[in-house]
Amino acid sequence: MEIFEFLFFFAVILVAAKIFGELAMKCGQSAIIGELIAGVIIGPSVLGIVHKTATFGEIAELGAVILLFEAGLSTNIKEFARAGGWATAVAFVGVLLPYLFGYFTFLAFGMSTTSAIFAGAVLTATSVGITARVFLDLKKLDTEEAKIVLGAAVIDDVIGLVILAVVTNLVSGNEMSILSIAQISAKAVLFLAVVVGLGLLVISFIFDKIAKHMKQDGVIFVLAIALCLFVAALSKKVELAPIVGAFAMGLVLSNTKHVEAIKQGVKPLYLFLVPVFFVLMGTEVDISIFNLFVAENRNILMLAAILFAVAFIGKALAGFVVLKKNVNKLLVGVAMVPRGEVGLIFASMGLSIGVFQQQIYSALVVVIMLTTFVTPILLKIMLSKKQ
Amino acid sequence: MEIFEFLFFFAVILVAAKIFGELAMKCGQSAIIGELIAGVIIGPSVLGIVHKTATFGEIAELGAVILLFEAGLSTNIKEFARAGGWATAVAFVGVLLPYLFGYFTFLAFGMSTTSAIFAGAVLTATSVGITARVFLDLKKLDTEEAKIVLGAAVIDDVIGLVILAVVTNLVSGNEMSILSIAQISAKAVLFLAVVVGLGLLVISFIFDKIAKHMKQDGVIFVLAIALCLFVAALSKKVELAPIVGAFAMGLVLSNTKHVEAIKQGVKPLYLFLVPVFFVLMGTEVDISIFNLFVAENRNILMLAAILFAVAFIGKALAGFVVLKKNVNKLLVGVAMVPRGEVGLIFASMGLSIGVFQQQIYSALVVVIMLTTFVTPILLKIMLSKKQ
Repeated sequence: MEIFEFLFFFAVILVAAKIFGELAMKCGQSAIIGELIAGVIIGPSVLGIVHKTATFGEIAELGAVILLFEAGLSTNIKEFARAGGWATAVAFVGVLLPYLFGYFTFLAFGMSTTSAIFAGAVLTATSVGITARVFLDLKKLDTEEAKIVLGAAVIDDVIGLVILAVVTNLVSGNEMSILSIAQISAKAVLFLAVVVGLGLLVISFIFDKIAKHMKQDGVIFVLAIALCLFVAALSKKVELAPIVGAFAMGLVLSNTKHVEAIKQGVKPLYLFLVPVFFVLMGTEVDISIFNLFVAENRNILMLAAILFAVAFIGKALAGFVVLKKNVNKLLVGVAMVPRGEVGLIFASMGLSIGVFQQQIYSALVVVIMLTTFVTPILLKIMLSKKQ
Repeated sequence: MEIFEFLFFFAVILVAAKIFGELAMKCGQSAIIGELIAGVIIGPSVLGIVHKTATFGEIAELGAVILLFEAGLSTNIKEFARAGGWATAVAFVGVLLPYLFGYFTFLAFGMSTTSAIFAGAVLTATSVGITARVFLDLKKLDTEEAKIVLGAAVIDDVIGLVILAVVTNLVSGNEMSILSIAQISAKAVLFLAVVVGLGLLVISFIFDKIAKHMKQDGVIFVLAIALCLFVAALSKKVELAPIVGAFAMGLVLSNTKHVEAIKQGVKPLYLFLVPVFFVLMGTEVDISIFNLFVAENRNILMLAAILFAVAFIGKALAGFVVLKKNVNKLLVGVAMVPRGEVGLIFASMGLSIGVFQQQIYSALVVVIMLTTFVTPILLKIMLSKKQ
C-alpha cells in the first residue's frame, strides 16, 4: 500500500468518524452509529474515498483488541460478584433466547447451518456502554434496574467471548457435536481462568517491581499494552479470538494500582484506533441491499426485519426472569437490547471467513444499528414515565 | 500477515525497546541507542524473532510521522527568532561541512554519486533531544552555549527536511543541476511556508470553533492527528517526505492554546509507535559487517570510521563560527555532534529505494549510534571542567 494512500485514508477515517460521531450524539444516539454511518458514506457503497486494505484490516483488528482491553480495564472484577444472581440469570437467558431465535430465523430463511451458528452469535452480547450512558444521562445509574442491567451486560460480554471461541472453532471445519462444543467451551473458560488467575497472582508484583526499577517515561503503560498484545496473540494461538485475551488482560490489570496510569495512556490509543475499527465495518456495508426492486434484497430486508424483532424480543423477555418486586422487568429487558462491538466483531469475522455474503453482513450490521438506535429512545420514554 | 504474527511482533518490539532503552539510559546513553540495539538483537541479524513486514513498514512510517509531529509541537516558533544570528550560522555551517565531508568520503571510496548525495544528507541534522538532555542533566540549559546549540538544532531540522526533499527528488531519476536543486529547495520551502503560513492564519480559529461546538471526548486531539496525517499525505503528494508535512503541522499547532491537550494525547501514541520505528531500523542492521575476516567488511568499517571522524569534525568546526567572547566554541560544536532520527530516516530511505546496500546502511546506522554515544561522555567532561 502506498504511503500516501495509507496516511490519507487514516486522516479521512478519523475526520469522518468524528464528524458523524458528533452528529449521532447530537441526535441522542451512540457515537458508534455515527462511525458506522461514516464508514458507509466514505466507503465503496457511496463516496468510494476509502476501501479496506490489508494494513487497515490489521489496524482495525488492533482497534478491536484495544477496545476489549479497555473494556477489561474498566470492569471491576468485584462487580461480577456484586452483580448477583438476578444479573447472572438475565445474562444467560438474554444470551440464550436471541441466540436460538437468530439461529432458527436463519434456518427458516434457508441459510446454511454454519451461517445460522454465526448469526445467532451476532445477536448475543449486549453493548453495555450505550445503556450505561442513557441511565447516566437520566441520573438513574443507582436504580436497582441499572445495577442488574450493568451486571448482566458484563457477564454477557464474557459469555459472548466463550461463544466466539466455540463458533470460530466450529466454523473452521471442526465437527459439531455436544462433545466438541463442551470441549471448546471448556478450553475457552480454562484459558480465561488461567490468564486471569495467573495474572492476578503475579501481575501486581511484577508491575510494582517495574515501576520501582524502570525510570523511562510511560514504561508501565507500554508494558501493559505489550502484555495485552502478547496475550491476544496467545489466545489466537490456542484458536480463540485475540479480543478474548485482550479482555482477560484488561481484567487482570484492572485489579492493580497502576490501572489509572494505564487507562490514561490507553485512552488516546483508543481514540486513534477504535474509530478505524467501526468505520471500516461501515465501509463493508453494501447499501444496495436497500434497493427494493431486486427480489433478493426484499428477502434480505425481510430477514433483517425479523432478526431485529427477535433480537429485541429475546432480550426484552430476559428481563422477566427477575422475580423481584419493585423491579421494572420490561425496563431491564429493553435496556439489554443494544448490541454493539462484540456483535459487530462476530459479523465481520463471518464476512472475512466467508460464512456471510456481503449482503447478509450488511443486513446484520443494520440490525445491530437498529438495536442501538431504538433503545435510548424507548428507555427515555420508560424512565420518564416512571418518575 | 497473519494476525498472530502481527500482535506477537508488536508485543516483542515494545518489550525489547523498553528493556534495552532502559539499559541504555542506565549507562547514561539515549534510549534511542537502546532501541536500535534491541532491533539488532531481535532482528534477523541475531535472534531472528522479528523481521520487517509490509504492515510494520507502514506502522514505522507512522511512527516517524508522529515523531516529527511531536518535534514540531514542541518547537516554539518564536524560538526561531530568539535563536539569533549565531545559531543560524552554526546551523548552516554545521549542515554544510558534514554534508560535503560525507559526500566526498563516499566518492573517495568509489561509491556512486547517488549514494554519496544520500550519505552526505545522513550526516547533516543534529538530534537536539540528546544534547538537550545532557545540558538539562548538568543544569546548564540556561548557558549561552546551550541557547545557541538548541536554536541551531531546530534550524538544522528544517534545513534537514529541505535537504530530504531535494535528495529524494534527485535520486528519483530527476537530473541534478544547480537549477533543479534550486527548484526543489524552493518547492520545499514554499510548501513549508504555505502550510505554516496558512495554518497560523486559520488554525486557531478552526480549533476554537471545534472545541466550542464538538463535545466528543478527545475531539481536538483526534482532529489534530488527522490534520497531521493529512498534511503528511499531502507533502508526499508534492514529492516531499511525509515527515516534512508532519513537522510543519506540529509547528502550526504549537502556536494554538490547544497545544497542551494535543501533546498529552500524542504522548501515548508516541510511546506506542515511535519504538516501532527505531526497533525496525535496528532489525535491518546487518552485524555481519563486523566480521573482519571478510575483506569487503574491512573496507566498509574503514568507511564507517572515516565517516564518523568527518561527522564529528564537521559539527565541531561549526562551533567556531561563533565569534562571540565568553562562548566555548568547541563545546557548541561538540554539542551539535549527535545525529538521530532525521539521519536514520535518510539512511532507511536510502535502503528502501536501493541507493544503499544493506552493509552501507548498517555502517551508517553505526556511525549515527557512535555520534550519539560519544557526545554525552565528552560534554560531561567539558562541562564539569568549565565549572
